[in-house]
Amino acid sequence: MANIAKKVSWSGRGDDRGERTPLLNGDEEVKYNRQVPDTLDYDNSENQLFLEEERRMSHMGFRCLEIRRWVICGLIGFLTGLIACMIDIAVEKLAGYKYFAVKLNIEKYTELGGLSISLILWAVLNSAFVMFGAIAVAFVEPIAAGSGIPQIKCFLNGVKIPRVVRLKTLVIKVFGVICSVAGGLAVGKEGPMIHSGAVVAAGVSQGRSTSLKKDFKIFEYFRRDTEKRDFVSAGAAAGVSAAFGAPVGGVLFSLEEGASFWNQMLTWRIFFASMVSTFTLNFFLSIYHGKPGELSSPGLINFGRFDTLNYFSFFPLHFPGGVLGALFNIINYWLTIFRIRYIHRPCLQVMEAMLVAAVTATVSFAMIYFSNDCQPLGQDNTEEYPLQLFCADGEYNSMATAFFNTPERSVRSLFHNPPGTYNPVTLGVFTLAYFFLAVWTYGLTVSAGVFIPSLLIGAAWGRLFGILLSFIASSQSIWADPGKYALIGAAAQLGGIVRMTLSLTVILVEATGNVTYGFPIMLVLMTAKIVGDYFIEGLYDIHIKLQSVPFLHSDAPPTSHWLTAREVMSSPVTCFNRVEKVGRIVDVLSNTSTIHNGFPVVAHTSPVIPTRKICGLILRSQLIVLLKHKVFVERASSRLSQRKLQLKDFRDAYPRFPPIQSIHVSQDERECMMDLTEFMNPTPYTVPQETSLPRVFKLFRALGLRHLVVVDNENRVVGLVTRKDLARYHVGKDGLEELHLAQT
Amino acid sequence: MANIAKKVSWSGRGDDRGERTPLLNGDEEVKYNRQVPDTLDYDNSENQLFLEEERRMSHMGFRCLEIRRWVICGLIGFLTGLIACMIDIAVEKLAGYKYFAVKLNIEKYTELGGLSISLILWAVLNSAFVMFGAIAVAFVEPIAAGSGIPQIKCFLNGVKIPRVVRLKTLVIKVFGVICSVAGGLAVGKEGPMIHSGAVVAAGVSQGRSTSLKKDFKIFEYFRRDTEKRDFVSAGAAAGVSAAFGAPVGGVLFSLEEGASFWNQMLTWRIFFASMVSTFTLNFFLSIYHGKPGELSSPGLINFGRFDTLNYFSFFPLHFPGGVLGALFNIINYWLTIFRIRYIHRPCLQVMEAMLVAAVTATVSFAMIYFSNDCQPLGQDNTEEYPLQLFCADGEYNSMATAFFNTPERSVRSLFHNPPGTYNPVTLGVFTLAYFFLAVWTYGLTVSAGVFIPSLLIGAAWGRLFGILLSFIASSQSIWADPGKYALIGAAAQLGGIVRMTLSLTVILVEATGNVTYGFPIMLVLMTAKIVGDYFIEGLYDIHIKLQSVPFLHSDAPPTSHWLTAREVMSSPVTCFNRVEKVGRIVDVLSNTSTIHNGFPVVAHTSPVIPTRKICGLILRSQLIVLLKHKVFVERASSRLSQRKLQLKDFRDAYPRFPPIQSIHVSQDERECMMDLTEFMNPTPYTVPQETSLPRVFKLFRALGLRHLVVVDNENRVVGLVTRKDLARYHVGKDGLEELHLAQT
Repeated sequence: MANIAKKVSWSGRGDDRGERTPLLNGDEEVKYNRQVPDTLDYDNSENQLFLEEERRMSHMGFRCLEIRRWVICGLIGFLTGLIACMIDIAVEKLAGYKYFAVKLNIEKYTELGGLSISLILWAVLNSAFVMFGAIAVAFVEPIAAGSGIPQIKCFLNGVKIPRVVRLKTLVIKVFGVICSVAGGLAVGKEGPMIHSGAVVAAGVSQGRSTSLKKDFKIFEYFRRDTEKRDFVSAGAAAGVSAAFGAPVGGVLFSLEEGASFWNQMLTWRIFFASMVSTFTLNFFLSIYHGKPGELSSPGLINFGRFDTLNYFSFFPLHFPGGVLGALFNIINYWLTIFRIRYIHRPCLQVMEAMLVAAVTATVSFAMIYFSNDCQPLGQDNTEEYPLQLFCADGEYNSMATAFFNTPERSVRSLFHNPPGTYNPVTLGVFTLAYFFLAVWTYGLTVSAGVFIPSLLIGAAWGRLFGILLSFIASSQSIWADPGKYALIGAAAQLGGIVRMTLSLTVILVEATGNVTYGFPIMLVLMTAKIVGDYFIEGLYDIHIKLQSVPFLHSDAPPTSHWLTAREVMSSPVTCFNRVEKVGRIVDVLSNTSTIHNGFPVVAHTSPVIPTRKICGLILRSQLIVLLKHKVFVERASSRLSQRKLQLKDFRDAYPRFPPIQSIHVSQDERECMMDLTEFMNPTPYTVPQETSLPRVFKLFRALGLRHLVVVDNENRVVGLVTRKDLARYHVGKDGLEELHLAQT
Repeated sequence: MANIAKKVSWSGRGDDRGERTPLLNGDEEVKYNRQVPDTLDYDNSENQLFLEEERRMSHMGFRCLEIRRWVICGLIGFLTGLIACMIDIAVEKLAGYKYFAVKLNIEKYTELGGLSISLILWAVLNSAFVMFGAIAVAFVEPIAAGSGIPQIKCFLNGVKIPRVVRLKTLVIKVFGVICSVAGGLAVGKEGPMIHSGAVVAAGVSQGRSTSLKKDFKIFEYFRRDTEKRDFVSAGAAAGVSAAFGAPVGGVLFSLEEGASFWNQMLTWRIFFASMVSTFTLNFFLSIYHGKPGELSSPGLINFGRFDTLNYFSFFPLHFPGGVLGALFNIINYWLTIFRIRYIHRPCLQVMEAMLVAAVTATVSFAMIYFSNDCQPLGQDNTEEYPLQLFCADGEYNSMATAFFNTPERSVRSLFHNPPGTYNPVTLGVFTLAYFFLAVWTYGLTVSAGVFIPSLLIGAAWGRLFGILLSFIASSQSIWADPGKYALIGAAAQLGGIVRMTLSLTVILVEATGNVTYGFPIMLVLMTAKIVGDYFIEGLYDIHIKLQSVPFLHSDAPPTSHWLTAREVMSSPVTCFNRVEKVGRIVDVLSNTSTIHNGFPVVAHTSPVIPTRKICGLILRSQLIVLLKHKVFVERASSRLSQRKLQLKDFRDAYPRFPPIQSIHVSQDERECMMDLTEFMNPTPYTVPQETSLPRVFKLFRALGLRHLVVVDNENRVVGLVTRKDLARYHVGKDGLEELHLAQT
């Protein structure tokens, strides 16, 4: 029997608000959760204005809109590709200068014996880069911290985190990621690309920028949640596509996260944006590398081509991925809690980031210094910065290779360098050190992704495993290619940390460029997820949970058939009459104890007894626009001279509708009446009270609703189901549990 | 302004019936449309029995179900891969024997000068093969004809075409496709794989077979439309995956066709089935080819590896693909109409198939005979049956290569043979001949797909274009690789014929194994679709339309905001009372003039005036089971001794519920009452009358509904929207048009 662990009293509670989670106590939450998330409404409010506009539009008009959508998607892809290209080149250049300077310095002091000066130079250079990045993030736009994937996941899920898709965020993100990667942190530049793509999409599709305070007066039709979300999905997909050269993976990422909003034409446009993005990156990088026409770098990271799969080698690495991934997540979780408690002032955050940079440099230096792993300098020398250090002439220090490279190159060499390139002890120490550095780094106030560090850790222990195996098996057998173990290890580690499944498989398959690797990669990701889920959730989900976001999963919890709409809904509901007094509207909207965003509109069939029969649904944002334009019944006669309120007025206010406090309503006006008929959605979706939770959930999720009205069998409003009401149920150890979201 | 071209009177019309299209007049339709399609219900009927069962189930129970789903998907993939492998080997063997025999014969008579004997031998062999295949299809299971893709599209869309997923169909399909490919028809074996995968899925997931009359008593939980459809999607994806070595393409195919039913776990299972399928095929083929462990044939067709894209070469081939595709479809459309009119008797159908086989052999022979395209026999001779004919020693006839190969091999050699392998005149004649043969062949009463012939035609004219271009440009320039033009031509031709977009791009990209080809392939498919759509619909859509299936597209027509639920719904609706007289139920169900499948259940609040307030929805199938078990109120006392009716009784009857005529109800029993409360779905989805068509459409499609009740603002039933009501609107030349579907 399903067991409702903690049932809390629910009446008088606000709906749809960004309240804080009781996971952390009062004060801490405030610091972590400075942005109160809002929810998106994917259900068009089909009011009279909307229907009139749609009906006025000819078939050709719809076709033009469709063409415009395609153009926007093309632009999104192009700009995202361009940004990826820019980041790539900037990082290469900056890191190149840095490694060159340090290398010269080390070479100079290797003989003289003052290597501590080199260490200090390196640590200072790294810290300086990281400082700039951290300052920008901490002081200018804190939402640009991290990979941005949790935020984009939330956005696609229907939760709007403020400022997440602004131009300013993009600028800081790009600057931050260049600094943190060039600063030698254990981070990747791939995750932030997804966020960047999403910002580009939001900006281009709306035809204006709040940060620049510029409205280009184009694409006004797309200024609503439904359309914006579609474009943001395309942007996220374009970001994935540019990051990994994986257009199909990008599409699947968007679909996996946007889950229910599948639509054939939309998917096709998302795919177009992805394709354009990877093509743009490829094109410009091919020009930058001086080989125009040779399109060989479809993504920021390329795994290089893997040859035909031999399937004997793919079975023993699944388990450690899940365990190590879970370990990573557990440590990072505690670290994040610690950070929320003690490191919440921007200057402290910058200092922590600088400290991590310095420690990273020191650890790297120590490992290079103490390792005696000398490798002969090959003919076809693929290392850009071979460091001789204490090795004999014609040899180089292979540990230095691992640290004197961008992590992307290190991953590739772990995959492809011939057997014997790496000493097992070197690899073991490297894995350990990099693991803890990466755990410490994720969650710093810098823009950075966790994909590449995860891949690198996994590739290192995967290759280590392969080497050890080849000691046991005969070294010439088919078991002996450690590069393939590195690939599987990388997949296992990444899967164990982020727990993405479908899209990650496709991304990795596209990055390896060989479809036969799909099956083992899928198996390894599945096992890593199952094993990891036993211990703790995925890294992104942890961070989403810490932000107390009402995140809806794709299905209702399996044992939730016990619950009905009557039990999950919020009630009583504040309703408005079809023709309502302005004073009451203002009072309801101003009431800070219950911030509602949607209000059922009811018709009073009998003037004496209020029957609350539903006849529509109106949104807070619509009411605010109406109040702002003073659309009162008493002014209707004088309004004849004025122009009629149009959909355009709502669009101009989108998405940042003014707060109710900024609208002045005089005492006289409070006595006026407002006729909501024209503006409310006359056909909101409703469910009867007996509907089971899974059924409510399915309707809510499939249509991307924000409010679902619960009615009795006389069609009277009895409650309202919002995202929070559904998000608080989840399956725990003792069956169904209720989270303490959204309490006032 | 939207223009409703033909508005027909709509009252008294049956809902949800397989009526015939007025595209053809009376008699013809009957012959074409022997199977009356039914619709699937993807909305669980959440009645008390269902809820009780779900509530009884523990969390562990749900987990077991989930594991069982995974096991089934694995099995589906495995069996589909195995079938693909079997077909491949059988075709290779049979075609091998045939070519060997003909080749020996030709070689014998080339010198003697009696080549007409060879021709006759060839034609007879081909006709014999085709005859067996055609007899099986025409006399045993006509639904196995063609590629089966239109039928699977319909199934995933929610239209059930009878017998389409039976074991017998699978057997005939496999046998038929082996015969027709071995018989040298211009067909491929890839399309039928999709159908085969779907049948396997339906069979395995239900744990029983009607054809074998065997019930394994397993997987009983999955005996309902919702679950079955999920597995069939997985099966179709596994089929695509095995056919093209494209697991991701398979997933996208299922999603594109199943459109709205996206769900994360489901997609992941579909992907699993796809992966297992391609892996199984690869594994067994590698053993068959004597190289176990070298997994190099993930699909029935492999395009071979393409090297890096040079993007200069991809822009001038988009247009002809659309035009030639449309031409193909137009000719085939008229041919199909002709066939429906005149070739409807099985023996005529067999004779036509044999005639086509003989003509194909003759045309091939003539072309080989008259072509003087001799090529030197290379060192690394890739041709399996090089035919010297009239060529000099050490040379072979290249036209013979094209015909003495399975079409898959021909495609591959057009893609990869070095420049200069083909004579332009040969290619031109070949394209022309093969085009008309392929048009004639599609729609014959044989199991066969259109993918490979389309690819072959396109590859031929693409390569021809490449060769001509290299005459103009310098032959050593980057423009000079005709193989890449062949690839783009193939994509253009296929896209122009089938008009699939997203999934086809991914399938082709996976088949080429190079992600950078994605962008040009996508562009070419898009253009081909746009150009082709200008002339006529896609081939599958034409055939679906000819079957007058109520196929729902993914969106409502853009200009349909004019219409509301009130205008599209069927009314008046036959309703039942919560406690209804058995006689009335039997009468309603027996009424052949209005075959309804769903009935709103209404509560009479006042005994005098029937208010028709909705309180549930009950299905014909449920009523039939109730009648069969005689669940009457009057027998309730005696039923105490009997066991209570359970969900199992409904599952056992699924999916072929007995017709009402087979259930005997005595005159006494007619006077009994039946209490529907426990069995009806108490929370059907409802919409108000004013809801716009796009909104109704979205709800209907997103939830996969079969019936949507339209209520007034008192919650009284005023109408019922079914699939037919929505499918009949489409955008024509003059705006919105109404199709004449579903008239009684």
